[in-house]
Amino acid sequence: MSDGDQATVLYVMTHGVDDPKRCATPFYLAATAAAMDAEVSIYFTMNGPTLLHKDAGEQIGPKGPDGERLKHFIDQALECGVKLLVCQPSLDLNDLILDDLIDGVRMIGGAAFNDMAIDADAVITF
Amino acid sequence: MSDGDQATVLYVMTHGVDDPKRCATPFYLAATAAAMDAEVSIYFTMNGPTLLHKDAGEQIGPKGPDGERLKHFIDQALECGVKLLVCQPSLDLNDLILDDLIDGVRMIGGAAFNDMAIDADAVITF
Amino acid sequence: MSDGDQATVLYVMTHGVDDPKRCATPFYLAATAAAMDAEVSIYFTMNGPTLLHKDAGEQIGPKGPDGERLKHFIDQALECGVKLLVCQPSLDLNDLILDDLIDGVRMIGGAAFNDMAIDADAVITF
Repeated sequence: MSDGDQATVLYVMTHGVDDPKRCATPFYLAATAAAMDAEVSIYFTMNGPTLLHKDAGEQIGPKGPDGERLKHFIDQALECGVKLLVCQPSLDLNDLILDDLIDGVRMIGGAAFNDMAIDADAVITF
Repeated sequence: MSDGDQATVLYVMTHGVDDPKRCATPFYLAATAAAMDAEVSIYFTMNGPTLLHKDAGEQIGPKGPDGERLKHFIDQALECGVKLLVCQPSLDLNDLILDDLIDGVRMIGGAAFNDMAIDADAVITF
Repeated sequence: MSDGDQATVLYVMTHGVDDPKRCATPFYLAATAAAMDAEVSIYFTMNGPTLLHKDAGEQIGPKGPDGERLKHFIDQALECGVKLLVCQPSLDLNDLILDDLIDGVRMIGGAAFNDMAIDADAVITF
């Protein structure tokens, strides 16, 4: 990237509530990047949108029942300014509608995602 | 990327017929990118080559037995000009040979893949 | 990337000893890239650090009990100059400490990882 520009980092999350051990890392790394003044989004596709269900944040956590909840990591990312984006067809894949998800999630199509990926300084898919 | 250049996007698919829910997204996004005039390839490695088996397209689909077949998404990608590439060692990993796969798949080695990844405007791994 | 520069490639490995079929590809591709004079690192996060446990290299292999061991692929990558990096919180996630891992693995934090991803010519996540 050019010197002086703000870096843009696009995380992609493809795993959902069935893989709780994988749930925290994208939010943690995205929060870290946003705290470094990068412009950071996480795009949820495949099973990823299930993590954004209103009930998921309290139900699962990366270290099981006794560890930190997913909500902790989502909240941290949101507080740092990370944008949460969801893939339209993957909502249908998981029998979800946008209203099932936590507030602040924006739905985008495949073309907008590809544009973001092409323009990003890094695309990191989980 | 430089203004005026055609964007190149490299998708990588690592999941195969054992994860039908994940099978359609790379083809869908790649088709979308190709329809935007990007030069788009999907590289199949790990379990990914199993999706290209001649029989897989009719056998699985992202939404189970009643939903759209994988073949629909593969055909859409091919019609948009997406190139399908397969990793040589991962054919062996899945006990496949190139003749088991649908027509038009090209086999490339690790060095060619790395060159493509370095030159691409975006690498998106699933 | 600019002509004449050495390319930098950052692999990310998120799967561990529970997915032996996936274990060899990142080491193989990273070794190939390093042999092409790129500067190559593999960052292990989520379940990835379990592959670096001192005992894992002899215990698993991509083709099961009769095939090549993981150790073969790790050694090949190390001989080509690939750097192995591990994510600090993911050690805890897998109940590991750095001393459990093979020699030469370096621990880095999320900020350092993001910087590497932003500066890399390609980030390839598995």
